Amino acid sequence: MKKEYDSKNVHKNDHLIKTSITNIEPDKIITRSYSQEDLITNIKFSEMVYLLLKGELPEPNETRMFNHILVSFCDHGVTPPSTQTSRLIISSGASLNVALAGGLLSFGKKHAGAIEDAMDLFQNTINETIKSMNDDKDENFSIDDLLNDDDLIEKIANELVDNHFLNSKKMPGFGHRFHSKDPRGGKIMELAKKEECLGVHSKLALAIEKILIEKKNIYINVDGANGAVLSDMGFSSFLGFGIFMIGRLPGLLAHVTEEITEEEAFRKFCHIEDIVYNGPEEEPLGD
Amino acid sequence: MKKEYDSKNVHKNDHLIKTSITNIEPDKIITRSYSQEDLITNIKFSEMVYLLLKGELPEPNETRMFNHILVSFCDHGVTPPSTQTSRLIISSGASLNVALAGGLLSFGKKHAGAIEDAMDLFQNTINETIKSMNDDKDENFSIDDLLNDDDLIEKIANELVDNHFLNSKKMPGFGHRFHSKDPRGGKIMELAKKEECLGVHSKLALAIEKILIEKKNIYINVDGANGAVLSDMGFSSFLGFGIFMIGRLPGLLAHVTEEITEEEAFRKFCHIEDIVYNGPEEEPLGD
Amino acid sequence: MKKEYDSKNVHKNDHLIKTSITNIEPDKIITRSYSQEDLITNIKFSEMVYLLLKGELPEPNETRMFNHILVSFCDHGVTPPSTQTSRLIISSGASLNVALAGGLLSFGKKHAGAIEDAMDLFQNTINETIKSMNDDKDENFSIDDLLNDDDLIEKIANELVDNHFLNSKKMPGFGHRFHSKDPRGGKIMELAKKEECLGVHSKLALAIEKILIEKKNIYINVDGANGAVLSDMGFSSFLGFGIFMIGRLPGLLAHVTEEITEEEAFRKFCHIEDIVYNGPEEEPLGD
Amino acid sequence: MKKEYDSKNVHKNDHLIKTSITNIEPDKIITRSYSQEDLITNIKFSEMVYLLLKGELPEPNETRMFNHILVSFCDHGVTPPSTQTSRLIISSGASLNVALAGGLLSFGKKHAGAIEDAMDLFQNTINETIKSMNDDKDENFSIDDLLNDDDLIEKIANELVDNHFLNSKKMPGFGHRFHSKDPRGGKIMELAKKEECLGVHSKLALAIEKILIEKKNIYINVDGANGAVLSDMGFSSFLGFGIFMIGRLPGLLAHVTEEITEEEAFRKFCHIEDIVYNGPEEEPLGD
Repeated sequence: MKKEYDSKNVHKNDHLIKTSITNIEPDKIITRSYSQEDLITNIKFSEMVYLLLKGELPEPNETRMFNHILVSFCDHGVTPPSTQTSRLIISSGASLNVALAGGLLSFGKKHAGAIEDAMDLFQNTINETIKSMNDDKDENFSIDDLLNDDDLIEKIANELVDNHFLNSKKMPGFGHRFHSKDPRGGKIMELAKKEECLGVHSKLALAIEKILIEKKNIYINVDGANGAVLSDMGFSSFLGFGIFMIGRLPGLLAHVTEEITEEEAFRKFCHIEDIVYNGPEEEPLGD
Repeated sequence: MKKEYDSKNVHKNDHLIKTSITNIEPDKIITRSYSQEDLITNIKFSEMVYLLLKGELPEPNETRMFNHILVSFCDHGVTPPSTQTSRLIISSGASLNVALAGGLLSFGKKHAGAIEDAMDLFQNTINETIKSMNDDKDENFSIDDLLNDDDLIEKIANELVDNHFLNSKKMPGFGHRFHSKDPRGGKIMELAKKEECLGVHSKLALAIEKILIEKKNIYINVDGANGAVLSDMGFSSFLGFGIFMIGRLPGLLAHVTEEITEEEAFRKFCHIEDIVYNGPEEEPLGD
Repeated sequence: MKKEYDSKNVHKNDHLIKTSITNIEPDKIITRSYSQEDLITNIKFSEMVYLLLKGELPEPNETRMFNHILVSFCDHGVTPPSTQTSRLIISSGASLNVALAGGLLSFGKKHAGAIEDAMDLFQNTINETIKSMNDDKDENFSIDDLLNDDDLIEKIANELVDNHFLNSKKMPGFGHRFHSKDPRGGKIMELAKKEECLGVHSKLALAIEKILIEKKNIYINVDGANGAVLSDMGFSSFLGFGIFMIGRLPGLLAHVTEEITEEEAFRKFCHIEDIVYNGPEEEPLGD
Repeated sequence: MKKEYDSKNVHKNDHLIKTSITNIEPDKIITRSYSQEDLITNIKFSEMVYLLLKGELPEPNETRMFNHILVSFCDHGVTPPSTQTSRLIISSGASLNVALAGGLLSFGKKHAGAIEDAMDLFQNTINETIKSMNDDKDENFSIDDLLNDDDLIEKIANELVDNHFLNSKKMPGFGHRFHSKDPRGGKIMELAKKEECLGVHSKLALAIEKILIEKKNIYINVDGANGAVLSDMGFSSFLGFGIFMIGRLPGLLAHVTEEITEEEAFRKFCHIEDIVYNGPEEEPLGD
């Protein structure tokens, strides 16, 4: 499969793409070392997602947990701006892939950034704690030591909450615009406990939630719970954001389909009656 | 200039969005009539996709089949333009959602259109056949009658093939750029047989394949096989295209992740040495 | 600049891109045969657009007319879906290029398709008329002959209008959702007359407008007028659509800037109070 | 489940959009206080862009300068990733607006970020200098005082360069990947001098360039020069990025048109022969 180039060709490698995901040979497609025929026959779609992203198949409890996570992202009705953007775009006569792409483009810092922010918060806090324990004590304080040190986790959770309150910042992954208690957040933490998927990041998240409930009646939300469990499963915040989008795409497709089958074309955010002009009065041009 | 509203304002309901997908109430999210807490706990991600798109849960054999289909779309390595576009865009420093959206935008008529075309071909042929049987014979010829009439299916398959050959057109869903026999196509048809998911569209597809193998050694591909089975499961070609994108998004994410972790930034399709200028020579401007 | 490849390298030209638009050499950029230093110093932005698209500079009257056209596309306030989509996307925290791209994605068949449709209608009608005159009379009936044959133009305009009425179709490029008389359409035709840019397509458009005013009080709109004049200037409908987007991008940028400087973040099309759930009642999952 | 509205509905104004850009009334379109009929007749496209973005028409020298800037952004051949992305997408059969949107999406941090970075550098440096002069001396040191203080400008330019060298950072707006001296950068500064558009940001940029030429033979590039002059004209870095995209869209359109008229469909970044698989060998699934 490797290409031999003439030794004088100085650009010989310029267009080569190296990949370790899928090997394509005539009549044979090998993904992450397994033939696609085997994968199609034997694994679940959620396992396939995990395999593609991590390069290996999950353990049975991870399979079940990862499936719960993907399902939990699926839809939040018409309320998210991304869903509304996809519906607007399909309504203007665009093709399906364009409407779905438009929905993805609406995931900006203000929307869908929470899972990335929550994962960065959990992972940075854990990493800095371990680093600082090792710097202070000059010994091998490991992630497992932290996992078993409930007092220390409670202490750093308290510091995090105080620091956010002090700076009047929202804690990413906790609280919800519509729900006083996001039903998905608690369910995911309950299932993570059942599946023995609670690692140090989830413990930190639960410790934060405990404090926030006491102080402000604020509960963990879908982004906080999934972000904590995905962190424990070894996913980066980059992949966490990606997994959210994989989970949400089916919901966007359902809404786009509903829009074109049930509604009239050319829907708009606001109508001419809803527009208030507050600029200057008309004047003649130049002189 | 400011707009006055009063109680008789006839536009007050203009922004209502009707939806039957998900009902959001405080601390409660009901999707397709089930609470999301129940769905998260009990169903597979592939079932959730099916539920969102069809409004009801699949039968057990449909669940397994739909899962096979989603897995089969997952990745075809770096060869598709969409994968290359996503890698180019993330390489320019764009954020993840933008790179994935760019990949979706690359699904044009020349790429990823095959599943839509195949489903339209199968569904239109079946619908027209039933209509014409009823017009001709003035009786109730049903889709079940057609399912059991192997000779008639063979006849319309032959007509389709002849018609495409006559017009030198490719038959959508059959043959593959790289593979002489796309391993995914045969595997999906084999599993559809096993799961008793072969309906009239799949029978037509298999009849077409039989003729094409004999005449030109051309086999059914992943789009043809999945398009036929999805047609039998009652999906439109619009949703077939959407299901393909749901299946493929994890692969795009894997490639985008590989690109930013393994490659240098600012990758380009071609380098300055690869550009051939064939326009006019320089000349002074105007006079 | 040309690259020499070893004769055994069978893929030697695979990545070469041929272009006749711009030649890049060290410290030298030549676009359409002129150095960019000369172009920057001496030509107007509207001339640069024309030069890029047509490969040659416009005549002075074409320069003025093309400038009028670009200005006329600039903005139609908050009413178009594309403007609303761009405002929604920037409001979610996306970056500027993403919001503008989202606006472009909203130009679907139902929105912004009118200029393409109008140009196709004008150009196809003219081409078919000339072809049919030559077929019928077996002589060289040219576009100039048609330009001078007011009776024939009136005849084909009448046929077009009758045909559209008969099929209850809207005539693309005429009439407007908000305006009974789009002020841009009339102004563009007036300026085209003044600049002596009225060719056969514009004459056809004016003949159609005359009939539509008489019959239905419908006037030419901005798409119809610009589409006719651009057709006379030799642009395809593909480029006409592109020129519209070049003209409109500044308006989208103005709206996006207004949105992020004047409005609160996370604007939405509809609020939770505006959502009507009309799906099935909640029920327990399975058993 | 259905929502009841009454006259006291507190959400009745939620969808109002306030705008000061364009007022749409029946048969009348007023943009930035001028009727579009007047604007179409009397102003240049570059003036229209300026008017939309700033809310007022430019002075004659600003008009000429702004026009030079827009022309200078128009095209850099096939070398930019954005141009290559647009060509890839149109080549897959996407529609024109989608290919142009894809090009815009490729403007990430690594590509096209230079103008924003340069404008932020210039504007932050100037603002901090004035603030620090006022803090230190407790008097009214104004931007005009700085404009006339060549020694101070030289001093802060030296500090900036030293600081960037010390941190091994590239100075945004200076140097070019292909050109040792970007011909557009020098031309823009020359024209800014001629048009008396050199303000304090341009003076700073020229002072930086003088040092960089002496130390490293590095010249100002198109982003640095335009970013400096646009800063002097009062544009934010956000608008600077937007003006770049307005200038570049015609070039993208020219390339997309060339791609579909001159090249075969389905162009790809790399071919199967250029893909190197470096993942694990095939193994059987599970057991």
